[in-house]
Amino acid sequence: MARTYKITLEYDGRDFEGWQVQPGGRRTVQGALEDALARVTGERVRVDGSGRTDAGVHAEGQVASVRLDKEPDPDRLWRSLNGVLPADVAVVGLCQAAEGFHARRDARSKLYRSAIWNGVARSPLRRARALCLGRPLDLEALREAAAALRGTHDFASFQAAGSDVETTERTLLRVDVCGRAGGEIALWFEGTGFLRHMVRSLTGTLLEVGSGRRQASQIPAVLAARDRRAAGPTAPPHALTLVRVDFGGSAARPAPEGAPGPGKSAGKSEA
Amino acid sequence: MARTYKITLEYDGRDFEGWQVQPGGRRTVQGALEDALARVTGERVRVDGSGRTDAGVHAEGQVASVRLDKEPDPDRLWRSLNGVLPADVAVVGLCQAAEGFHARRDARSKLYRSAIWNGVARSPLRRARALCLGRPLDLEALREAAAALRGTHDFASFQAAGSDVETTERTLLRVDVCGRAGGEIALWFEGTGFLRHMVRSLTGTLLEVGSGRRQASQIPAVLAARDRRAAGPTAPPHALTLVRVDFGGSAARPAPEGAPGPGKSAGKSEA
Repeated sequence: MARTYKITLEYDGRDFEGWQVQPGGRRTVQGALEDALARVTGERVRVDGSGRTDAGVHAEGQVASVRLDKEPDPDRLWRSLNGVLPADVAVVGLCQAAEGFHARRDARSKLYRSAIWNGVARSPLRRARALCLGRPLDLEALREAAAALRGTHDFASFQAAGSDVETTERTLLRVDVCGRAGGEIALWFEGTGFLRHMVRSLTGTLLEVGSGRRQASQIPAVLAARDRRAAGPTAPPHALTLVRVDFGGSAARPAPEGAPGPGKSAGKSEA
Repeated sequence: MARTYKITLEYDGRDFEGWQVQPGGRRTVQGALEDALARVTGERVRVDGSGRTDAGVHAEGQVASVRLDKEPDPDRLWRSLNGVLPADVAVVGLCQAAEGFHARRDARSKLYRSAIWNGVARSPLRRARALCLGRPLDLEALREAAAALRGTHDFASFQAAGSDVETTERTLLRVDVCGRAGGEIALWFEGTGFLRHMVRSLTGTLLEVGSGRRQASQIPAVLAARDRRAAGPTAPPHALTLVRVDFGGSAARPAPEGAPGPGKSAGKSEA
């Protein structure tokens, strides 16, 4: 009988072409994990991620699920995987999950963080993981815009052009602006699901507001437009991190199958 | 008449062969700054650093002093330098200093931080800037050893082999252990001056204590030995950052010449 495992991953996205296995043998996190599993267990299987992160996007807590026929011991599997995975990806949690657990279908919400360096001078030590904006941002305007994005909306204006999903309605549980103008600022986005490039276009639009190039009061009109051109630019991926995926229960007892989850949101890379 | 400038620098040390200009055209921070000054001002001058950082060591607040005949405006010079410096080094502060200000001779103290990741799994996102030690460290033992290092001692046991300085007596104003076992830990070292590789060998020795391979009560004997072999290994450079250099006054009014400073400590790279 096979066992299902929940695998939590941290990765430095810089040298990956995103999460998802792609034709042509490009380097992906999913591919690295599947290769490592094959080496360690002898089983060549497909793993399911909670969602697809773009090329360059980092993760502190991406979650994948996998069924393995040989039922390896979780702690031993964890150690073995970290022994063979490349240096820029690691298993930071691994446990047996309930039969039928699926990282994408059972995910209740995901938390992303966009990092901004707002200091007067550029920061060599932060440049790999933050957007550098020299002029002090207007945090009050940023927070007003963030509040207008919270809740359930049609986010079609924040979806990559050419996407094809059944519905563009999503729910943002949390859009927070932390930090201080002139220093480190983090934008936090927690949602039940995200459209392709949604976090990055939300970030780009919020930064337009923070820089005074757009009014916070325009956000409802941007949402209503349902047109990518109404929103701001797609922020670069290197400042974005998938922090956590929540399943509405402990790691070892994920939500039962059929529980409400983001479902359709993960058809394409979302961040 | 020439003016003296105080230049504060942040750099990602990874791709530099340390601070100091070297024969053979190797890439150094001092060399990058001197090249940028030549491009911006037309003057080919020598800059003086507060001390030499090793290859791979980072800085958030290294300080250099320079005299320029053409007396450029400080704010304009700052912006111009950041326009031509490579991406891994930036000027994060620049002001006119008192006549005669010298970054090495006038430095009163320097603050270094060693970063440790003590999580059960390795951390891809921290690997570039922290030492990864999987087994939980004994912070109580670490703190006991840190306390024994504070104060004025002969630190010959913590000096790179082959160094040649007049005296190996130095004063550590602060040796602090911050963080928690199983998570992020920082070792802070503030001193009036450091011997070559001193911070890295202090770090290596403290980590032996934290890992239970050496007793904290042995530190006085290690100091008394005045022998590099009595102390622990030299920790790798990538986890070390020069955080700040203090001059005992405001940036624009440095300590007068002849004030007590680390003087002899900076003859060779010290970290």
